[in-house]
Amino acid sequence: MPDYETAVKLVLENTPAPNPARDAVKTPLSRCLGMVCAEDVSSGIDLPQRASCGPDGYALHAEDIAAASKGSPVTLRIGETVRAGVLPRRAVARGEAARVMTGSVLPRGADCVVRFEDTDEPSGKSGPNPDLPATVRFFVPAAPGSGVTPAGAMLKRKSVLLPKGTPLGPAQVSALIAVGRTEVKAFRKPVVAVIATGDELVAPGRPLRPGKTYNSNASALAAAITRHGGVPKLLGVARDDKASVLRKITQGLECDAIVTSGGASKGDYDLVRLVLGELGEVVFATLDIAPGRAAAFGVARRKGGGKRRAPVPVFVLAGPPTGCLINFETLALPALKKMSGRTDVSHPEVEAVAADSFAVKGPFSFAIWSQLEKTGGGYAVRLNPAPSGAGGAGFLAAMAASNALAILPRGADVKPGDKVRVLPVLGW
Amino acid sequence: MPDYETAVKLVLENTPAPNPARDAVKTPLSRCLGMVCAEDVSSGIDLPQRASCGPDGYALHAEDIAAASKGSPVTLRIGETVRAGVLPRRAVARGEAARVMTGSVLPRGADCVVRFEDTDEPSGKSGPNPDLPATVRFFVPAAPGSGVTPAGAMLKRKSVLLPKGTPLGPAQVSALIAVGRTEVKAFRKPVVAVIATGDELVAPGRPLRPGKTYNSNASALAAAITRHGGVPKLLGVARDDKASVLRKITQGLECDAIVTSGGASKGDYDLVRLVLGELGEVVFATLDIAPGRAAAFGVARRKGGGKRRAPVPVFVLAGPPTGCLINFETLALPALKKMSGRTDVSHPEVEAVAADSFAVKGPFSFAIWSQLEKTGGGYAVRLNPAPSGAGGAGFLAAMAASNALAILPRGADVKPGDKVRVLPVLGW
Repeated sequence: MPDYETAVKLVLENTPAPNPARDAVKTPLSRCLGMVCAEDVSSGIDLPQRASCGPDGYALHAEDIAAASKGSPVTLRIGETVRAGVLPRRAVARGEAARVMTGSVLPRGADCVVRFEDTDEPSGKSGPNPDLPATVRFFVPAAPGSGVTPAGAMLKRKSVLLPKGTPLGPAQVSALIAVGRTEVKAFRKPVVAVIATGDELVAPGRPLRPGKTYNSNASALAAAITRHGGVPKLLGVARDDKASVLRKITQGLECDAIVTSGGASKGDYDLVRLVLGELGEVVFATLDIAPGRAAAFGVARRKGGGKRRAPVPVFVLAGPPTGCLINFETLALPALKKMSGRTDVSHPEVEAVAADSFAVKGPFSFAIWSQLEKTGGGYAVRLNPAPSGAGGAGFLAAMAASNALAILPRGADVKPGDKVRVLPVLGW
Repeated sequence: MPDYETAVKLVLENTPAPNPARDAVKTPLSRCLGMVCAEDVSSGIDLPQRASCGPDGYALHAEDIAAASKGSPVTLRIGETVRAGVLPRRAVARGEAARVMTGSVLPRGADCVVRFEDTDEPSGKSGPNPDLPATVRFFVPAAPGSGVTPAGAMLKRKSVLLPKGTPLGPAQVSALIAVGRTEVKAFRKPVVAVIATGDELVAPGRPLRPGKTYNSNASALAAAITRHGGVPKLLGVARDDKASVLRKITQGLECDAIVTSGGASKGDYDLVRLVLGELGEVVFATLDIAPGRAAAFGVARRKGGGKRRAPVPVFVLAGPPTGCLINFETLALPALKKMSGRTDVSHPEVEAVAADSFAVKGPFSFAIWSQLEKTGGGYAVRLNPAPSGAGGAGFLAAMAASNALAILPRGADVKPGDKVRVLPVLGW
């Protein structure tokens, strides 16, 4: 019966990483968000391609204003006005200053750019100065090179811009477009089959007869898989008979991984482990952490040869909704990250100060849906996040009000002020 | 010239929150992810509706096994087997134990449930015991109430399950379905117009002539808006003339907010602020934090009466890509969160220990794209996250390699070991 850390280790050992040769697809940048870069991207060009102007201001020879001061300003002739996107027409002569905009190519001859604010140029303008002055006065000297963005300062040609394994988000899209790319090789999103099991399950929208439960896990797991970069494939509900479970799991083998809910504890009708044992191997069943103790994990293999023999990780998660999502967060999520091509797959974790009390009952560690808050010096965690009315609003309400999982060791009797290990749960 | 905190405060004061009467829409649960709950959701039913069985095991009268011990086990008759989803057919008599599954309704008469592991029931079963024994032996007593999930323990009828303002993610969908909901009132996603400005901009895929720059900001901003719960509306590129800017901004007034890139500094051709001043008011221009100092913010108003008079926040972000995304993250993101219906809109922030050095040049605070890492006791931050080759790979590469923004006060000269204020940037 593995503890949490061992279970995660076993999951990762049995979950394949994507193969760059086989699982990488050329993806338009408009569709790559949430995927992981599958190539080492380097730039074929320097950025900027040529030395450019940092601020809006005047480009000139620094030596010309070396003696400038407030009491003794230096006056230069205004030469060319260089507009954004247009090359300078000529060099800047000695005694001259060209008006330039941020990002303009630095005119030949100039070796610095002085901001408008450091000259007698009127500030707060919105359009060319209607007075069209012929000269400009400088009140401070400038060092050669100041206000100049050298060629390659944003990005050097041939350096690695995005290493393989980088998650693709807004900043990465920005960098890719800046170097002229319109698409990138990204690891395809893993497809995860979602199978709920149990004769007690009823579809949302139907009336709920006593003894029945709404099938909330399927939708919740689909949402969690989507949130973390996978593509859920909902395969419906398997009933509590071996043929039904076998049929669904076999269908799921077309996918990269399978997640089931229910079907993992020691009851008479928990058939998923039976089927998993026949189609592959059970790596572990039952964890040392509750709720969700009755989770299991194994690997099934597709029939047939070649790449179709690839192992398919199967996560048999607890049936009760709170335990089901705890299992997903702790066991399935690291695997999903690995299958997506991420290299940093461990769950984020912080240390927080308990704001209230909690005593762990039972001979195992406990995972608690809790509310993590930023405080001045760190984090605080409320282990009872939905305390309304006598005895609280219930542990389902607690989960709905939570943004974190606190992990407490067996026998823990937490009091306010104690340090607690907390996994922030990524919201939407 | 406001500092960072003051700028955020001004942005939020001038950004409207959604109106529950007008901006809330009934949304199917399959489509509510990433939105914010616009109603106080409470349950019409207890969950479980009746006392239920916690583990798989035997339901019985606790008094019957009060004297049980390893040396002196108590034997009970096996009565009914209660399957998942089916109500018990009869009560449990004294001297009898009913076989039950997790989540079954607790049979009348029973007051506790004992796990199979605490009896002589064979473990590791996968299907009913083929031996069909008539009795079962208990080795430990059980307290009345143990192993029983009381009615309402998951959720109490009429208690608030999800307060208005709760972001909707997997756990919230789980809770909503569990109480029988198929849809929820959620605040509609805010629509944000994206306008890039500048004659130097070239669309990705075209050849890059000297002096030109690829339009990366539009796509990066669209991605960031999507990531944070908005709907981007790309309105194309405004050229550096007043008519073009006016036309684009006016088009943008159909949306809930406008984000432009470029057009904010003091150059001759920075027309967005001019247009903004005509269509509304400029709240601030120029920040005390670089890069991205040349950002501006204001409020424009649509023409016409009634709800069409609602103020439209306009974010005039820096043109250079690194500054543009810094401005988005620090100024526009809190506003986007507020417009989405979130109540916690401040940017997440941590304190980290510097892993390397950085000296702030210039008379303002500095925001640096950096790499935040979890360490044993807290966080460490690398202020130079892309150090490859002489002088580094460039600041665009640094942004692409980053997952955080470090905020350094003016004049800061950070050495390894110093404490640094860091905003983690939510990746994908």
